[in-house]
Amino acid sequence: MSAWKERSRPARLERRYEFPDYETLREFLDRVAELSEQEGLHPDMGFGRTYLNVTIHADDGATELGDRQRRFAEQMDALLPASARPM
Amino acid sequence: MSAWKERSRPARLERRYEFPDYETLREFLDRVAELSEQEGLHPDMGFGRTYLNVTIHADDGATELGDRQRRFAEQMDALLPASARPM
Repeated sequence: MSAWKERSRPARLERRYEFPDYETLREFLDRVAELSEQEGLHPDMGFGRTYLNVTIHADDGATELGDRQRRFAEQMDALLPASARPM
Repeated sequence: MSAWKERSRPARLERRYEFPDYETLREFLDRVAELSEQEGLHPDMGFGRTYLNVTIHADDGATELGDRQRRFAEQMDALLPASARPM
């Protein structure tokens, strides 16, 4: 799992995305919102004009990350447009 | 200017919004994205499922907040749906 970092206390996955422009970032945010509604999983998302920081926490009450969190991270990466993929 | 707090070092406006559900938050994020593109002003936005933290910084190179920032804060509040207005 590429650019994702796994942290503990609390268990979470973190990643930063960079985009060529706001429009591309906005498009990605929309896709991830669809995914969040579909999976019922809502990461903490921090963005500005061309960056997006994402933190995926373990399920409420869980102390460990599960398949749900790891799969969501991979699904997010799969939604990335070519223009935002690291070289 | 209602719930906005003005901070210094660096000069910025901060506010937290709470929403009844993710769908309402998402709708608001869309409206603010339109406003950002229209005004060319992109606050730092942090959200999860039903909260949104916003930080509006001074223009690049400026040390003070200007009308642009204050107007953007008011425009954001004006985009709030009734369901997300504090009682």
